[in-house]
Amino acid sequence: MTFALHGVDGAARRGTLTLAHGNVETPAFMPVGTAATVKGITPADLREIGAQIILSNTYHLWLRPGRETLVALGGLHRFMAWDRPILTDSGGFQVFSLESRRKLDDDGVTFQSHLDGSTHRFTPENVVGFQEALGVDIAMMLDICVKLPAGTDEVAESVRRTTLWARRGTAAWQRGATALFGIVQGGLDERLREQSARELVALDLPGYAIGGLSVGESREEMAGFTRFTAALLPVAKPRYLMGVGTVRDLIAGIDGGVDMFDCVYPTRAGRHGRAITRSGEYNIRNAGYVRDERPVDPQCSCMVCTTFTRAYLAHLFRSEELLGPRLLSYHNLAALAALMSDARDAIAAGRWSAFRDAALNPAVTAS
Amino acid sequence: MTFALHGVDGAARRGTLTLAHGNVETPAFMPVGTAATVKGITPADLREIGAQIILSNTYHLWLRPGRETLVALGGLHRFMAWDRPILTDSGGFQVFSLESRRKLDDDGVTFQSHLDGSTHRFTPENVVGFQEALGVDIAMMLDICVKLPAGTDEVAESVRRTTLWARRGTAAWQRGATALFGIVQGGLDERLREQSARELVALDLPGYAIGGLSVGESREEMAGFTRFTAALLPVAKPRYLMGVGTVRDLIAGIDGGVDMFDCVYPTRAGRHGRAITRSGEYNIRNAGYVRDERPVDPQCSCMVCTTFTRAYLAHLFRSEELLGPRLLSYHNLAALAALMSDARDAIAAGRWSAFRDAALNPAVTAS
Repeated sequence: MTFALHGVDGAARRGTLTLAHGNVETPAFMPVGTAATVKGITPADLREIGAQIILSNTYHLWLRPGRETLVALGGLHRFMAWDRPILTDSGGFQVFSLESRRKLDDDGVTFQSHLDGSTHRFTPENVVGFQEALGVDIAMMLDICVKLPAGTDEVAESVRRTTLWARRGTAAWQRGATALFGIVQGGLDERLREQSARELVALDLPGYAIGGLSVGESREEMAGFTRFTAALLPVAKPRYLMGVGTVRDLIAGIDGGVDMFDCVYPTRAGRHGRAITRSGEYNIRNAGYVRDERPVDPQCSCMVCTTFTRAYLAHLFRSEELLGPRLLSYHNLAALAALMSDARDAIAAGRWSAFRDAALNPAVTAS
Repeated sequence: MTFALHGVDGAARRGTLTLAHGNVETPAFMPVGTAATVKGITPADLREIGAQIILSNTYHLWLRPGRETLVALGGLHRFMAWDRPILTDSGGFQVFSLESRRKLDDDGVTFQSHLDGSTHRFTPENVVGFQEALGVDIAMMLDICVKLPAGTDEVAESVRRTTLWARRGTAAWQRGATALFGIVQGGLDERLREQSARELVALDLPGYAIGGLSVGESREEMAGFTRFTAALLPVAKPRYLMGVGTVRDLIAGIDGGVDMFDCVYPTRAGRHGRAITRSGEYNIRNAGYVRDERPVDPQCSCMVCTTFTRAYLAHLFRSEELLGPRLLSYHNLAALAALMSDARDAIAAGRWSAFRDAALNPAVTAS
C-alpha cells in the first residue's frame, strides 16, 4: 500500500491510496456492505455510482458465512463479485455493542453470536489473520470502542488495551497484500487521545483510524476531537474517521484533515425513505411529493435522478415496494460519492473553504 | 395494433404484435408490475433481461396512486419510466378475490379498498376509460372470473355477465392507441367456453384472453381447456393465457396455441429463494448450496448467472439481505425470457415438438 498526498488546503487533504485491488482517490467515502453486500445494491451499481472502495464487517462475516466458506470460495472479493478495494473493520465495535453477551480480558474477548448464541473468541491475532485470509486490501486492528459519555477510568483502560492489542496485532500481521490500520481511541479526553495516537504511531502502521467518535457525543465534540486527533497522526499516512456519513459530518471531517470515511447512513436512510441531497435531507413519504415531477435531487446526475421522479419514489415507498429502498439507497450513495468527488476537486483547486461553506449552507432547500 | 402470424408448428404459433410503444415477438411472457413496478427490478433491468412488454394492474393503480395522479404525471409509461408496451388487466380478478368486500350487479361491481376500506365502483365503461387514460398499449375488459371448482350455474352466470360487460366495454372503447382485449370465461365447461368465445369473437376485438384458468384446477385440466379455448379464437388475433408462468405451463400453453402469458410466479418465487432453471426448480436456501460455486443455472447467460455463485445467493437469502430477492427475481425473469426466445426460434425452425419434449424432460436436474 502506498499513499500519495497531492496537496493540502487548510487542513483538508487531497491524496491517492494505492491498494492491492486498485486506487482510491481521497477524501473518499466507503459504502458499507456489512454482510458482504451493500444492502440492495450490486457491484455493478457501485461502480456506476463511483464507489472506489467498500467496507465490510469482520464480526458479521466471521459468524456467517464464516472463514472456511469464504476461503473455500476464493476470498471476499470473489465471493461478492467486487474487484475493487475492500476494507474490513475489526469487529471490535460490534462485539462491544453486545454488552451482556461478551466477556473481555487482556488476551481478547469472548462473545455469543447474535444469530444463534454460539460462543466465539476474538484475539488481536485471529482478527488480523481472519481479514488477511479474506484477502481484503485494508484490515483494521481489534480495538476497544467506548460508548460516550464514559468515565476517564473506563476510557483510559480502553486506550491501554487498544495499544496492547495493536502491538500484538502488528506482530501477527503478515505484511502481505493486506494493509493494517491502527485505531486511535481516547474518548473526549485530549490527554488520552494523545497517548493513544503516540503509542500507535510508534508501531509505524500503513494508516490510522480515528475511532471512538460518532458514538454518542455532540456534533461539535465530534468535529473538535476529529481535528485534534487527525493532527496527532503522521502527515504522510491516510486517516480514516469511522462511522461518519452525513453531509455535514463528512465536510467537517475533511475540514479536520481526514481522508477516508464509512457509514451505514446513506443506505439505512435510503431504506427508510430519507433522501440525501446537496441542499438538505427530506423524507420522500411526506405528502408533498406525491405529484412532484422533480428528481430526488435536481442537482444530482445519478441514474435514479435522471430516470425517476419524486412522485414515483413516493409511490414506491407508500406501496412498500422493494424498488423504493433500492433506488433511494442508490441515490444516497451516489450523492455522497459526488460530494466527495467535488470536495477532491475543490481541495485540488485551492477553493476548499468556499466549497465547505457552500455545502454547509446551501442556497436552496431540498423540498 | 396489428398482429402478424409468421407461422405455426402444430398448434404453436410464432408472431409479432405491433403496439403503440413497440413490437412484441410472440410467444411472449409478460413480467408483472402490479403497482407500477416489477418488484425489485428497474426498467433498465427489464430491458437487459429482454422483457418486451410488462403487465400492471388496474385494481392496484386505481387505488394507489389513482387516476388523477397518473394522468397528472403523464400516464403510466412516464410514471414508471418504462417506454416499451404495457398491458393492464381489468381489475376483475382482484375485485372478485375480495369476496366479502364486493357487491356485484349487472351494471358493475362495488368494492372496498383493501388498503383503507374506502368504497369504489368498477363498471365496464370506467375500467376501459381508466386504462385508456393511463395510455397503456393493451387494456383488458372487465370480466367475472370464477374460482374453481364451481357449479355450472355460477359459471354460466359469469359468462352471461362477462359478455354483457364486454359489449358495454367495447361500446365505450375509444379505439385509439390502446387496444382492447376480451376475456373468455366458462370454467371447465366446454359448452360455456364455446358460448363465451362465440359471443366475444362477435365483437371483433383486437385480441382475446383465456381467463378463468390457473384458478384451482389441475395442470391437466388447465392444459386441456387452454387448447380447447384457443382453438375457438380467431387465428389472426393474439391469444393471451392469464396467470401462467411456470416452465411446464408456458410450454403447455404455447403447445395449445397461446401467444402471450403473464404471472407473478418468477418474481414471487425469486423473493422466496426459489430458482427457475431449464433443468428444474430448487430452493437456494437448501444446505447444499452454501459452498456451491456454480451459477444459479449453468445454462443461463443472464447478468446474475455470469456474475454470482449459488453460494453467494445462498448467503444473501440466509442473511435476509435485500439483494437476494433482487438477484433471484432478475434471474427467474431472464430464465423465462430466454425460454420464450428459444421457443420462438424452435417454432420458426419447425422443431417445436422436440423443443417442447426436451423442455418438459430436461436431461440434467437442477441441483
